[in-house]
Amino acid sequence: MTSQPVAMFADDQGAPGLALAEHYEKVRRFTLHLCEPLVVEDYVVQSMADASPTKWHLAHTTWFFEHFVLSKALDGYRPFDAQYNVLFNSYYNSVGPQHARAQRGLLSRPSVEEITRYRDHVDRLMAELLENPQRSEQVNALVSVGLHHEQQHQELLLTDIKHVFYTNPLRPTYRTPKRLTQAPAAGQTGWHACSGGVYRIGHNAQGFAFDNETPRHSTFIAPFELSDRLVTNAEFMEFVEAGGYHDPRFWLSDGWAAVCTGGWQAPMYWENHGSDWWQMTLGGMRPLDRSEPVCHVSFYEAEAYARWAGARLPSEAEWEVVAASLEVRGNFVDDGFYHPVAMQPGAERQPAQLFGDVWEWTASPYTAYPGHRPWTDALGEYNNKFMCNQMVLRGGSCASSASHVRATYRNFFAAHTRWQFTGFRVAR
Amino acid sequence: MTSQPVAMFADDQGAPGLALAEHYEKVRRFTLHLCEPLVVEDYVVQSMADASPTKWHLAHTTWFFEHFVLSKALDGYRPFDAQYNVLFNSYYNSVGPQHARAQRGLLSRPSVEEITRYRDHVDRLMAELLENPQRSEQVNALVSVGLHHEQQHQELLLTDIKHVFYTNPLRPTYRTPKRLTQAPAAGQTGWHACSGGVYRIGHNAQGFAFDNETPRHSTFIAPFELSDRLVTNAEFMEFVEAGGYHDPRFWLSDGWAAVCTGGWQAPMYWENHGSDWWQMTLGGMRPLDRSEPVCHVSFYEAEAYARWAGARLPSEAEWEVVAASLEVRGNFVDDGFYHPVAMQPGAERQPAQLFGDVWEWTASPYTAYPGHRPWTDALGEYNNKFMCNQMVLRGGSCASSASHVRATYRNFFAAHTRWQFTGFRVAR
Amino acid sequence: MTSQPVAMFADDQGAPGLALAEHYEKVRRFTLHLCEPLVVEDYVVQSMADASPTKWHLAHTTWFFEHFVLSKALDGYRPFDAQYNVLFNSYYNSVGPQHARAQRGLLSRPSVEEITRYRDHVDRLMAELLENPQRSEQVNALVSVGLHHEQQHQELLLTDIKHVFYTNPLRPTYRTPKRLTQAPAAGQTGWHACSGGVYRIGHNAQGFAFDNETPRHSTFIAPFELSDRLVTNAEFMEFVEAGGYHDPRFWLSDGWAAVCTGGWQAPMYWENHGSDWWQMTLGGMRPLDRSEPVCHVSFYEAEAYARWAGARLPSEAEWEVVAASLEVRGNFVDDGFYHPVAMQPGAERQPAQLFGDVWEWTASPYTAYPGHRPWTDALGEYNNKFMCNQMVLRGGSCASSASHVRATYRNFFAAHTRWQFTGFRVAR
Amino acid sequence: MTSQPVAMFADDQGAPGLALAEHYEKVRRFTLHLCEPLVVEDYVVQSMADASPTKWHLAHTTWFFEHFVLSKALDGYRPFDAQYNVLFNSYYNSVGPQHARAQRGLLSRPSVEEITRYRDHVDRLMAELLENPQRSEQVNALVSVGLHHEQQHQELLLTDIKHVFYTNPLRPTYRTPKRLTQAPAAGQTGWHACSGGVYRIGHNAQGFAFDNETPRHSTFIAPFELSDRLVTNAEFMEFVEAGGYHDPRFWLSDGWAAVCTGGWQAPMYWENHGSDWWQMTLGGMRPLDRSEPVCHVSFYEAEAYARWAGARLPSEAEWEVVAASLEVRGNFVDDGFYHPVAMQPGAERQPAQLFGDVWEWTASPYTAYPGHRPWTDALGEYNNKFMCNQMVLRGGSCASSASHVRATYRNFFAAHTRWQFTGFRVAR
Repeated sequence: MTSQPVAMFADDQGAPGLALAEHYEKVRRFTLHLCEPLVVEDYVVQSMADASPTKWHLAHTTWFFEHFVLSKALDGYRPFDAQYNVLFNSYYNSVGPQHARAQRGLLSRPSVEEITRYRDHVDRLMAELLENPQRSEQVNALVSVGLHHEQQHQELLLTDIKHVFYTNPLRPTYRTPKRLTQAPAAGQTGWHACSGGVYRIGHNAQGFAFDNETPRHSTFIAPFELSDRLVTNAEFMEFVEAGGYHDPRFWLSDGWAAVCTGGWQAPMYWENHGSDWWQMTLGGMRPLDRSEPVCHVSFYEAEAYARWAGARLPSEAEWEVVAASLEVRGNFVDDGFYHPVAMQPGAERQPAQLFGDVWEWTASPYTAYPGHRPWTDALGEYNNKFMCNQMVLRGGSCASSASHVRATYRNFFAAHTRWQFTGFRVAR
Repeated sequence: MTSQPVAMFADDQGAPGLALAEHYEKVRRFTLHLCEPLVVEDYVVQSMADASPTKWHLAHTTWFFEHFVLSKALDGYRPFDAQYNVLFNSYYNSVGPQHARAQRGLLSRPSVEEITRYRDHVDRLMAELLENPQRSEQVNALVSVGLHHEQQHQELLLTDIKHVFYTNPLRPTYRTPKRLTQAPAAGQTGWHACSGGVYRIGHNAQGFAFDNETPRHSTFIAPFELSDRLVTNAEFMEFVEAGGYHDPRFWLSDGWAAVCTGGWQAPMYWENHGSDWWQMTLGGMRPLDRSEPVCHVSFYEAEAYARWAGARLPSEAEWEVVAASLEVRGNFVDDGFYHPVAMQPGAERQPAQLFGDVWEWTASPYTAYPGHRPWTDALGEYNNKFMCNQMVLRGGSCASSASHVRATYRNFFAAHTRWQFTGFRVAR
Repeated sequence: MTSQPVAMFADDQGAPGLALAEHYEKVRRFTLHLCEPLVVEDYVVQSMADASPTKWHLAHTTWFFEHFVLSKALDGYRPFDAQYNVLFNSYYNSVGPQHARAQRGLLSRPSVEEITRYRDHVDRLMAELLENPQRSEQVNALVSVGLHHEQQHQELLLTDIKHVFYTNPLRPTYRTPKRLTQAPAAGQTGWHACSGGVYRIGHNAQGFAFDNETPRHSTFIAPFELSDRLVTNAEFMEFVEAGGYHDPRFWLSDGWAAVCTGGWQAPMYWENHGSDWWQMTLGGMRPLDRSEPVCHVSFYEAEAYARWAGARLPSEAEWEVVAASLEVRGNFVDDGFYHPVAMQPGAERQPAQLFGDVWEWTASPYTAYPGHRPWTDALGEYNNKFMCNQMVLRGGSCASSASHVRATYRNFFAAHTRWQFTGFRVAR
Repeated sequence: MTSQPVAMFADDQGAPGLALAEHYEKVRRFTLHLCEPLVVEDYVVQSMADASPTKWHLAHTTWFFEHFVLSKALDGYRPFDAQYNVLFNSYYNSVGPQHARAQRGLLSRPSVEEITRYRDHVDRLMAELLENPQRSEQVNALVSVGLHHEQQHQELLLTDIKHVFYTNPLRPTYRTPKRLTQAPAAGQTGWHACSGGVYRIGHNAQGFAFDNETPRHSTFIAPFELSDRLVTNAEFMEFVEAGGYHDPRFWLSDGWAAVCTGGWQAPMYWENHGSDWWQMTLGGMRPLDRSEPVCHVSFYEAEAYARWAGARLPSEAEWEVVAASLEVRGNFVDDGFYHPVAMQPGAERQPAQLFGDVWEWTASPYTAYPGHRPWTDALGEYNNKFMCNQMVLRGGSCASSASHVRATYRNFFAAHTRWQFTGFRVAR
């Protein structure tokens, strides 16, 4: 397979109506905003191999700009610290060796202060570069990739610190979030019907997209109906209370193994306090809100629930053809809830909640689209080497930036993972 | 999802032109034929968790008939030994608890002799049942499933004993196989072109099929070309010698992890003897035949080779639309080679080698077809609970019975597995 | 440290009053006698890494004579099979590489029949050698070592097959053992008092001893009292029922970890059947006999019991100074019980049960005696490289041959091991 | 076994000539002195399960005073934070549950600042208590235990942070240590001869001792010679260069397993830089000083070296009878080297280096002395539950406080551990 230059697809210059330099500054500043509630000690801990310490996120996203933009755009650029090329390279084998992922939490140095100096250094040079009107299209494209990359790590930063705080018996609070007034129960699911036929899905090459969203291509879809809202805690609790976690008949074989070896009894972050369920949130422990979308479930749990409920998960194509015609609106990190929120009374259900709140597990394994060409060089590793043993999720979450989400966006995680803001809706 | 009765799909009465009773007797006898070269000790060993001891295969396939046919068809049937329901239940949670898979090799009892008595007992009752013309369609269907099930285990019996013999430094020989005269090099790959459009794939409900092959449904395929033969040892050796196992750029992330943790340097069963490569076969160690199809590669190796060669693996739909029009002919276990054979000079390449020789890895993760309904009850577990983290393989192998293979057949294994007779062809 | 020739210490010619050739024949035949109840499949299985398959024991003990006697005593001796030097070398690094211990159960070949031929071959040559009156003292010494070695493996063969049968849910019976008439409860422990002072312990160089029993040396012992019998099942059951396995205060730190990770609730092979305790024996499952010595406990359990009971375990020196003056009499494998037996009414308690029944855990870590010199060459590995992280046991068991046991004999196992016939008595 | 009140043995009031209150203040202040070179991030990391984060050491030693002194001495004492009773309880099962040892590095909170407040709170109350002349002897004894406990953790704090810094590819420096002028080679070992006989060892109940040093008791020792200095890097390097790490004949079986699984090629913290050896120190990486005592070796390495050199390790009794008559002088943490130093020209060798520099591995497994009675209640767990699978070390190290070391002091670690300042001398 041949590969394609990044510039061919990553051709926007930031968010609409915003110069790239401004967008750069805004995105980078938002990362620091997310760190404000933390004490220095919080930046250091890695509570499991899948997660990374906050200070690693701060440094890695900076290294991304340093390595993929500055070191290529500036003649004779000398790295801030040559060892950072190993410490903060996540997984780019084409770039060179990497510090072992599971050992990111063993590094007390560089300190947060040193990493802050590193960020400042790179931001200064990036600002100069972005003020230069002669810069190439390739630079623009790479900066766009870098900013979307940083937005992905903003989301990870939140989910990872949530896990750090949950691992701690003291259960610290990240930030007292805004709270909506209590919403009423969601009411019956409505079904959004679509006729069968050949549809076009994938990115149309207008504005930014990751390479894995391309090329736009035809796919045949049989007639289907998509639920007009997310599955709620109330609904999922019925599954729990019906013994769903104790009956292998509802589960995929690998899913049942995960239930047994992980001792799963409910979604992650749920705790049974006698007669009540509580859940860990970025605002600390609080009673489970039955109207909220269920969150922190694995693909296995979503799939088992759907089977139990006599339904199924939608394919990513089914999801996308419905989402394609809708505006990207929803509960994003910009809103400051840091948690999925219940559907408000009177919400339009065209369907509702497709964007934001929770990433929605689909029935689709993550594979290359027909005719797919990855980005050139090391950036080809960004998305493509993970195209095995992962499931596609769609729609963004309460930890995603609004400017980062679109209908064609393909997120992916292994089927057992639960620490992301992951939920689902059903189809039939 | 609702489920469908087994009878709806498993409605043939064995192989064409053969009464079901005769087919039963023939298939069961073939299992014993495969055991002839073994000494009693060989029946006991489980050389890895994925494999099973020969005597377990003999007992489990028997239990399948006892539990799914006899105990349902015969009023008041009393099991041969109630504990066998645990010992020889493979993975049917709906039936009850199972002896742990990884501990099958820790059981010296029941002895081979006792298991032989068990087989005889069940065969006697099955023969009576199959002579009864009043038996139900459901019984016929279940017997068909049981025989295809036994044929699957015949293949596993061979691949598992091959692994047992390879694990032993003495490297015993299973059976001196028939050998073809040495074939010439395969020559250039030809490309079989197909136009794009909506195709129908899946089983058409004529004759036996597993539930996972249904329903027949539409799918859109873009124009593609399929290689007209399998990749050979000579070709794969180029990849090995070009450093393919040392360069992460060719590999999926999980694949590279498998290379590193497994210390992979070449396909399984290859050994580097100085300047020559040898390989373990069921006929013992012998020099690698460059003209033979490459075998005992994982999905990861097939995928890496394809990327290195500037091609890709076909999807299962692409494979099926080509195979659908061809006769099911090839090198099967019936032929007695117990190993893939080189394409003979003058072979028709329409394309060639689609059936037999090696199971062909496809690019398709194993998922349910749109509108799929699994079989009822415990048999719904047969295929469906594995629809995650597995890849589809097509076409049967040199260890498959000819009467067991068809164009719609979907085999599946995890991407890292190599002990089956697995190879591949490329597409573009 | 210098080493000493084997001949210096292993200078008896078998059992008293028996020519070495006869003793050789008798010991070797007894091994086969122990195998009589087994079917071929039983010889193959290795149910845990600590244990070995029966056929491995048969071959390894034969290899011991072939390698350490025949290959040295016979000019130009050619091994029966050169690969056996790897397959059946247990742990002698000085001899060469070894097949991995944990993989002994993965070898179906050589078959039992082939190993029987191997034994016959070696026995024939050994018989010729032992008929030769010109043979050296060194040969005599090595043959003595080989026979004591074979007797050790006879014991292991029994404990290993017991574990194989316990691992199997069918719980086969090895041999219906002789049974004594039920004994009455053992009555109160009496205390055997010894005054303090400097004692001599260790082997006095008359007759056979392993190198680890030498040199005889002085040691200071404070006044102590030794229980005049073994701890019984009835007594140990009190500890179990008092919650001993649930209270960390009684346990060494490593012992408590073993309780928790192993889920220990009682001695190995005990099973709680509602209100009754049963135990696995070589005669199958049977109700626990309260009068029998407790068996299959680890050092940790013995030590915890002693602390709970306000006592302690004796040191090996304390045990030996008491045992030294007593005749070696007790329940040995020769008696055919294959299980510890209750003390019979009227037994002399001088103290009783010091020899046979169960190996007695002592408080002594296994270390070299002051001035110790190991055997020369590879045989120096026999005992000496294990002098760390093991505890000494004394007195032999119901699976030991009477001709194999003496007061100075030092057995040793890791503190957590339970599958040997291990029990204890207390001191204060 | 009965237990003894702490007061019976821990009856000194701090260091000679110093009121207990002053001693308390001095020891506690020294802990903070050791933290001065650290940044906040350094306090958080746990680089392996055996080690603990600096902030855990700070909190745990404080909890020791709070739980064992304040909560018992002050009526109605309310803990600073009830959850600290779990988080900072190391291993006292009698006190209650503990946060899992291996997860101490997953806690970002309480922060260093909060722990500092905790220390201040406890120190204030302790100061009040120690000003009260009415306080009981029991309080004095417990405070002495607490201060020796804190001194043990000061040593661990240094060895643990050394490991944290070594784990980090940046290899930070803890503190630029004082350096002696280069010492000449140590010259030949001299031998200090002792005649055999019954000796008295153990603590004589004058001043502070841990319970495991008691009772003073008789032991028989054969005539022996003890090396008059520690083994040096130069000597150990000979063993390395003679292939010592590649020849199993020198090693205990468990030791050889540690070499193979750990990939050991030299002492811990040695690095081969082409023709030179370097080592990690608390002053950063520097070339190996051949005259210094070898350090960071396991018991296995010490034992293998001794065997290779034709010698052996001394028993703890041999070590103690020599040390008993010498003044406690040497290179301690008070001296500020944070590293063993070479023996200076003209040093008295009566023998030399018995105290300070490195803990000396002995040949003695860690067991209870005859007639031993542990401390009462939870403090009985302090030393006694570790009396299995550990070896005794003697003499203190460059990380020990001078006021903490005495001839009867028994330190203990598992035979494979290397991250402490551990070396050895030989005997014969």
